[in-house]
Amino acid sequence: MSAAPTVAAVLGSGSWGTTFASVLADAGCEVRLWGRDADVADQVNTERRNDKRLPGIELPAGIRATTDPRAALDRADLVVVAVPSQVARATLTELRPLVGPDAVVVSLMKGVELGTDRRMSEVVVEALGIAPERVAVVSGPNLAREIAHRQPTATVVSCIDEDVARRVAAACSSSYFRPYTNTDVVGVELCGAVKNVIALAVGIAQGRGFGYNTTATVITRGLVEITRLGRALGADAETFSGLAGMGDLVATCSSPLSRNHTLGKHIGQGMSLDEAVAATGGTAEGVKSCRSVLELARSTGVDVPITAGVVAVLHEGMPVDEMARGLLSRPQKAEGLSAEG
Amino acid sequence: MSAAPTVAAVLGSGSWGTTFASVLADAGCEVRLWGRDADVADQVNTERRNDKRLPGIELPAGIRATTDPRAALDRADLVVVAVPSQVARATLTELRPLVGPDAVVVSLMKGVELGTDRRMSEVVVEALGIAPERVAVVSGPNLAREIAHRQPTATVVSCIDEDVARRVAAACSSSYFRPYTNTDVVGVELCGAVKNVIALAVGIAQGRGFGYNTTATVITRGLVEITRLGRALGADAETFSGLAGMGDLVATCSSPLSRNHTLGKHIGQGMSLDEAVAATGGTAEGVKSCRSVLELARSTGVDVPITAGVVAVLHEGMPVDEMARGLLSRPQKAEGLSAEG
Repeated sequence: MSAAPTVAAVLGSGSWGTTFASVLADAGCEVRLWGRDADVADQVNTERRNDKRLPGIELPAGIRATTDPRAALDRADLVVVAVPSQVARATLTELRPLVGPDAVVVSLMKGVELGTDRRMSEVVVEALGIAPERVAVVSGPNLAREIAHRQPTATVVSCIDEDVARRVAAACSSSYFRPYTNTDVVGVELCGAVKNVIALAVGIAQGRGFGYNTTATVITRGLVEITRLGRALGADAETFSGLAGMGDLVATCSSPLSRNHTLGKHIGQGMSLDEAVAATGGTAEGVKSCRSVLELARSTGVDVPITAGVVAVLHEGMPVDEMARGLLSRPQKAEGLSAEG
Repeated sequence: MSAAPTVAAVLGSGSWGTTFASVLADAGCEVRLWGRDADVADQVNTERRNDKRLPGIELPAGIRATTDPRAALDRADLVVVAVPSQVARATLTELRPLVGPDAVVVSLMKGVELGTDRRMSEVVVEALGIAPERVAVVSGPNLAREIAHRQPTATVVSCIDEDVARRVAAACSSSYFRPYTNTDVVGVELCGAVKNVIALAVGIAQGRGFGYNTTATVITRGLVEITRLGRALGADAETFSGLAGMGDLVATCSSPLSRNHTLGKHIGQGMSLDEAVAATGGTAEGVKSCRSVLELARSTGVDVPITAGVVAVLHEGMPVDEMARGLLSRPQKAEGLSAEG
């Protein structure tokens, strides 16, 4: 990135990609928004709207949408990837020849790649064949619709090269979007992948009729267990109490739009997993990933009682009340991270 | 405390005192509930209810209420103090001759004593003339009404003597109340005193019309600044991301019953402080304590931008939008605790 206005290509015209394109445009970048849907591109260019993904929101000037990846990526010094996680490798492999040799690549994607268990920044590194120092991730309490409405929020821009994190942060900083930098990429991506399991647990408790104390307890103790897991995997504990961990978790567990949270509520109200998936209008990421998180915890010797409870309720038919009893009747513990369980 | 059932005296028959008496009774203690209101004591003894403070809730058997402190404290090996913070010193000084020489004393009180700035456990130590090793504090996501309804929650029992903390935890542990132990009394009490300032800031943001992202950002960054202050005062950072810190803060910021949160919302909607106090039906603790927290931070050289913003809005007439702009336009920062501001 040079001193001239950053030229940013945003790959993916879904709600988060379109919103992040708006953030970059408001921050003064020249922005190209790439997606495969020609109707979306047309509407962005002619009406400054993306009614399919962000109905009712007026986008800033300074976003040019296109279905042509060459036009999007030409001279781009910042490449933002916001395609669905499971197509990221294929999409980036296809676009690899168009990404400039000095471009910084930012992943907005969450979760891990099925089959390889790779974090999304690892997928970016492998698919584009670039150094990890050129890849940053962005994560925080960032519900797209609220940002599109320019409501104030903060986020974390993480890169193992702190200077690159700073440059990305500068490129997206605006009057309503405040990025903090961090170098713990593993921790930030782990937060994004495992918070859905805790959001499921919170939903289950709320569906069962429990109130603010129970919610706050599940969030707090859930964060302790994923922090403990993160530390065992080399992440920094502070990341988990930061914006990508606690911040994202608190926002997710408050929002009625979170699928994990909603699906959990249905389970707590007594539905089977199949019924809950149907009522939610599809599955939620935590339903699958809770098992991977539990396996990971077992292989690293970390006790994750809330995650284990979620797996037992969703996949082993344990009644919700038995899960609650199990969690509450464990032996007395000290509170800290170094204590077990 | 002996191996026989613990004899517990709860001083204060308000909503939290009565609720904690129920927790202890459900955990198997012999409980005496002391208060000055004879009608409350009568109703607890004859109807197992305290309709003045916990309307509609049936109390467990095993609580004997009395207005006679001698009857309450006779042979008590656990003395739980749940009187209003500002009368604690006078009440305990009066009762001092009745407290047994080996009794453990538990403070449920929050805030600091006006005039002396003492934490409540320090007031207990001074007023009763006992060693700090005999004094524990209990704090967490513990909205009284929900616990009285036996909804699951966790809490922290903190004492500088870990063994005493363990004994208190064992005495109050039940199927719905899960205590964790901790030895960071300073951190736990500091969390209880300063979380009200962050709850005010969250209320202000919500009153202004901002949503889940902004709320989660204020909670997360607010916790970072009070953690930084706590560390400067000798507290342990982990306490702040635990149940007494983050847990209590998340519960408080969700509850419509929190006065700090409610008063903040009125301010965010554009009321003056006087109007907001009137609409809330009285002041809220954070209104006063935000100035003490700011002074404390300045004297220890810790940057607390959210607290400073609350003080400016409440006491210096700064418009809410200017506070938001101020917070968002500060220089770019790294996320961690060791970073400044």
